[in-house]
Amino acid sequence: MIECKGRIAVLTSGGDAPGMNAAVRAVVRTGIAKGYEVFGVKRGYNGILNKEMELMTFQDVSEKLQHGGTFLFTARSAEFGEEAGKKKAAAICKEMGIDTLVVIGGDGSFTGAKDLSKYGVNVIGLPGTIDLDIAYTEYTIGFDTAVNTAMEAIDRLRETSNSHERCSVVEVMGRSAGYIALWCGIANGAEEILLPERFDNDYDKLIEEIKKNREAGMTHQVVINAEGVGHSYELAQRIEEATGVETRATILGHLQRGGSPTARDRVYASVMGSYAVDIIDQGKKNRLVGYKDGHVYDIDIEEAFKMKKSIDDYEYQVASILGTRCDYKNI
Amino acid sequence: MIECKGRIAVLTSGGDAPGMNAAVRAVVRTGIAKGYEVFGVKRGYNGILNKEMELMTFQDVSEKLQHGGTFLFTARSAEFGEEAGKKKAAAICKEMGIDTLVVIGGDGSFTGAKDLSKYGVNVIGLPGTIDLDIAYTEYTIGFDTAVNTAMEAIDRLRETSNSHERCSVVEVMGRSAGYIALWCGIANGAEEILLPERFDNDYDKLIEEIKKNREAGMTHQVVINAEGVGHSYELAQRIEEATGVETRATILGHLQRGGSPTARDRVYASVMGSYAVDIIDQGKKNRLVGYKDGHVYDIDIEEAFKMKKSIDDYEYQVASILGTRCDYKNI
Amino acid sequence: MIECKGRIAVLTSGGDAPGMNAAVRAVVRTGIAKGYEVFGVKRGYNGILNKEMELMTFQDVSEKLQHGGTFLFTARSAEFGEEAGKKKAAAICKEMGIDTLVVIGGDGSFTGAKDLSKYGVNVIGLPGTIDLDIAYTEYTIGFDTAVNTAMEAIDRLRETSNSHERCSVVEVMGRSAGYIALWCGIANGAEEILLPERFDNDYDKLIEEIKKNREAGMTHQVVINAEGVGHSYELAQRIEEATGVETRATILGHLQRGGSPTARDRVYASVMGSYAVDIIDQGKKNRLVGYKDGHVYDIDIEEAFKMKKSIDDYEYQVASILGTRCDYKNI
Amino acid sequence: MIECKGRIAVLTSGGDAPGMNAAVRAVVRTGIAKGYEVFGVKRGYNGILNKEMELMTFQDVSEKLQHGGTFLFTARSAEFGEEAGKKKAAAICKEMGIDTLVVIGGDGSFTGAKDLSKYGVNVIGLPGTIDLDIAYTEYTIGFDTAVNTAMEAIDRLRETSNSHERCSVVEVMGRSAGYIALWCGIANGAEEILLPERFDNDYDKLIEEIKKNREAGMTHQVVINAEGVGHSYELAQRIEEATGVETRATILGHLQRGGSPTARDRVYASVMGSYAVDIIDQGKKNRLVGYKDGHVYDIDIEEAFKMKKSIDDYEYQVASILGTRCDYKNI
Repeated sequence: MIECKGRIAVLTSGGDAPGMNAAVRAVVRTGIAKGYEVFGVKRGYNGILNKEMELMTFQDVSEKLQHGGTFLFTARSAEFGEEAGKKKAAAICKEMGIDTLVVIGGDGSFTGAKDLSKYGVNVIGLPGTIDLDIAYTEYTIGFDTAVNTAMEAIDRLRETSNSHERCSVVEVMGRSAGYIALWCGIANGAEEILLPERFDNDYDKLIEEIKKNREAGMTHQVVINAEGVGHSYELAQRIEEATGVETRATILGHLQRGGSPTARDRVYASVMGSYAVDIIDQGKKNRLVGYKDGHVYDIDIEEAFKMKKSIDDYEYQVASILGTRCDYKNI
Repeated sequence: MIECKGRIAVLTSGGDAPGMNAAVRAVVRTGIAKGYEVFGVKRGYNGILNKEMELMTFQDVSEKLQHGGTFLFTARSAEFGEEAGKKKAAAICKEMGIDTLVVIGGDGSFTGAKDLSKYGVNVIGLPGTIDLDIAYTEYTIGFDTAVNTAMEAIDRLRETSNSHERCSVVEVMGRSAGYIALWCGIANGAEEILLPERFDNDYDKLIEEIKKNREAGMTHQVVINAEGVGHSYELAQRIEEATGVETRATILGHLQRGGSPTARDRVYASVMGSYAVDIIDQGKKNRLVGYKDGHVYDIDIEEAFKMKKSIDDYEYQVASILGTRCDYKNI
Repeated sequence: MIECKGRIAVLTSGGDAPGMNAAVRAVVRTGIAKGYEVFGVKRGYNGILNKEMELMTFQDVSEKLQHGGTFLFTARSAEFGEEAGKKKAAAICKEMGIDTLVVIGGDGSFTGAKDLSKYGVNVIGLPGTIDLDIAYTEYTIGFDTAVNTAMEAIDRLRETSNSHERCSVVEVMGRSAGYIALWCGIANGAEEILLPERFDNDYDKLIEEIKKNREAGMTHQVVINAEGVGHSYELAQRIEEATGVETRATILGHLQRGGSPTARDRVYASVMGSYAVDIIDQGKKNRLVGYKDGHVYDIDIEEAFKMKKSIDDYEYQVASILGTRCDYKNI
Repeated sequence: MIECKGRIAVLTSGGDAPGMNAAVRAVVRTGIAKGYEVFGVKRGYNGILNKEMELMTFQDVSEKLQHGGTFLFTARSAEFGEEAGKKKAAAICKEMGIDTLVVIGGDGSFTGAKDLSKYGVNVIGLPGTIDLDIAYTEYTIGFDTAVNTAMEAIDRLRETSNSHERCSVVEVMGRSAGYIALWCGIANGAEEILLPERFDNDYDKLIEEIKKNREAGMTHQVVINAEGVGHSYELAQRIEEATGVETRATILGHLQRGGSPTARDRVYASVMGSYAVDIIDQGKKNRLVGYKDGHVYDIDIEEAFKMKKSIDDYEYQVASILGTRCDYKNI
């Protein structure tokens, strides 16, 4: 008979991301294996406030690993947004004997977690967002799947674009972060990539390059546009008018959020979920689990929020060299 | 030494569709095997007018079968649209000794073919369009791939829609024909399907059903909307406002045109391409190759244009029974 | 308040096939919609004998459509194989008020159903097998998915085979039926296809062709071998020894049985499941649902067993023309 | 007019791996962009000996990025294996003005490169192998795609295994390295993982665990077996005989080598290819490009060969905790 070491609750919050289920499964199973009781919380922070929490068994997380989305559901919570809501949530955790709350989500969810920790709940965060827009970590659960989903869609678009000798504008997710756009830019061999972090709004230059490439013999082009730059339909129209090249826009949208997670998302989500329980077991408090310099690590939640993120310069340069072909007859 | 029986030219025209390459390959290889010279024409009817035609060998069509798009390219031709253009095209065919032109495309391309036949060129049509909107045939090259592509995207959307307990509006291709929408409706278990052939613009009823389903306990919904009904962003907004359920729209767009063809598209395109050469070899003139009652067949081009198409009633009924769940607690 | 029209039970039997879940869902939902109570039976005929049957609701079959396998499980039953077992099964059905049993499976499962019908249970069969080896129907649930799965695997094999300029022997499923092999043969552009229905065991001729093709300049080859011909590892060794061409064998095996069903398998399985309930509702007895001449139909179970199946001659001929390239420099 | 800085040759060698084309493309395009002439060498080291080398343009590597395999082909070379062969190869490089040879391959190919460097050719290696079995680097081109391919196949196997309540033995590639097996083990939630680095040949213990899991209520099991452990068919038979549980073996084989590369393989291959040219441009000699601690780096070829690799302990532990469920009713 193993004595129970304590109670852990786990929730998913913010936009869903493929691999969240794998992370929940890892928290539950590792938790049980190490002697904890683990509760699954439904609908993000709402589930604490509404006491939608259930004790999980090893079998409850069977057959979840391979599915996208989150079987715990996710939601925004207006009530938890208020100070009173956080206080109430902490009280409920205390009342239920929950020492530690594992939050799988993005920056917004971690802000909530940080605030909650002030009321005495130990919070551990796992980065779950397709956007890779969290400063303290080089990997977020769901990014790998989202990039592959977008890439496969753009492979298809390039094929039809090529058949019609068109220009394609493709909008991928990323409001303030251009990682999906940058990775697809390289992976799809895009001729142009517009990132919120880099694009200078010089549309004339963009159009000039497209024109030059056509004159140099290029028969089709793919422009990858991040959501944060946006206006893809207008951009397509503008390119068509200025260049005479038939141009179509596609906004990939929410389909980038779904789908069975890739191997990497399943493996890293599993490792991070196990790691979260390990640091709980070591008595650590208020940490975020991340991936840095090729390894899983953890960092104080306050420290993590001080960090700044930017696009990888070298990758951006590689994308530019491999894709921009406007002078390719001369070199 | 086999004596050459004649010259066949093959082109792809209109919107591209996965499987067109398989069809071209089959025409080329069967043509050669049966003693013909086969010319590949670039960029649809333009390629005749511009004499962009090349004699093809067995090897020229190697490694094409598995790729989407069309390696012969496709384009609209303003010049061929004019009577003078057709006359000129026929003259060029005659000049080059091309007896028969195989046209892979949709209704618009077949209209051009029919007109061209009046100037003495034997035309054979193969149905190539993702929309399945050609009356004389129950199968068109590309439909199977497009439906699977759309279905997989909608599977992803349902997953994220489920995690957030949202309503999803998904727009699939089909301007006047709702086949992709109907098939995805069944294949994705959509709660609502809006087809140009059936939808009565009764948005109030639609919204009423969505509301009722929510009240009955349904936590997420997928509304599949055909391009011909359209206005998906507006529809999503209207649903959200009327029901209070968070609703997002996605327009799948041109990605439905690309991608490696499915087995069915490869097999049927291959069989149809071979069949086209067989009927040429039998001396048939001005025929369209189709698929009807489970078999490949051919029909006179004039006859084919007299036919009318409509949505399969039984499939529509099945979609309605399996998807509409508003009273499901009562039955 | 709808009066209950009767009780239907549904089971899956024999080898599982993608789309079985879609068929069960359609039987359950259409059954409920038309006023029946529908029971799901676990583990094939065993589930009747062991009374593993549960009344199903509309929601019980939610989120099943997109998954391969069968959530009702499947198994062989030694007990049901005996006459006494069938008698007992019929008695249990009577005792539980089950008028009609819907069996989703292959030839073996239908033989069991036919025998059961003699004890007064009305049996309706739906063809569920990846092998397409049932005489009365041109479509079986799961075939389309299995062919696409095999085709994608062979696309991959061709790529690596091409890089190494190898010969690849690929064994696909089909003990007595070569449909998967034939379809992959066309879809993958295989240079050789060995079907149980056609292969004359003339390995010398096969090797001669491979040699000739190499001499004519072909740099890689794919030989698709049906399970019923078998001996793939030995064949690869024999080819390598006789031709000097590096040759590798792969047996795709059970992975061909799994996977999310294709659109066609989902749609046809749904239509057939609904159709099964419709004919029950019309008072029909002991019928098999099939697909013939492009339409869903039903046939008396005794009649169905008298039919014979053979490979489509035209498709086989197309495969031979498009793939066999040994003389391709001369024509 | 840019002055030519020198001549680079690039080849692929050893087993092909998805992403090799992306790496070649990056070497060619970055090379041209930085002022080099880049030659593509056919069929590995053979291509030098046979002078199968062609000057590449920007366009020659168009539409290669998304394809698996290697368009430069790959082969073993008996002649290059001899000292005389290496001497001859070096002489040919000198004669053609080729200063630097970029070799994309695995350990065996790098040994050849190291030897060649002694005859005055500057060699730069890029790690291209699906096995991840090169000590100096934590990433090899092709691993990510191979793992995803294997994982998807195993997802399918689990589905059918589940329907039949079977045990599945799946053999994945990896003769001396168990990385694919380990990653699939976590990604597929395998109940057992046999790695060449760890498996102690205690089959009795393995069988005991499978038995216990069944007794505890587990209805299906997946055993992932690395090629280096092997004997999968025998293992399946042994499990079936000892446990009475129906057990099937599948050897995934060469299909793990093919397929369109994942985003990660495309991006990292592109970055590494560009990086290779950058270090050439910096005048570095005889280096291997790798990925370590989350970053691309380069290391002296002699140094690299001194390193030793082992399985990640933490990942192995996570796999064990998450998959081994034999006591799961008690904890």
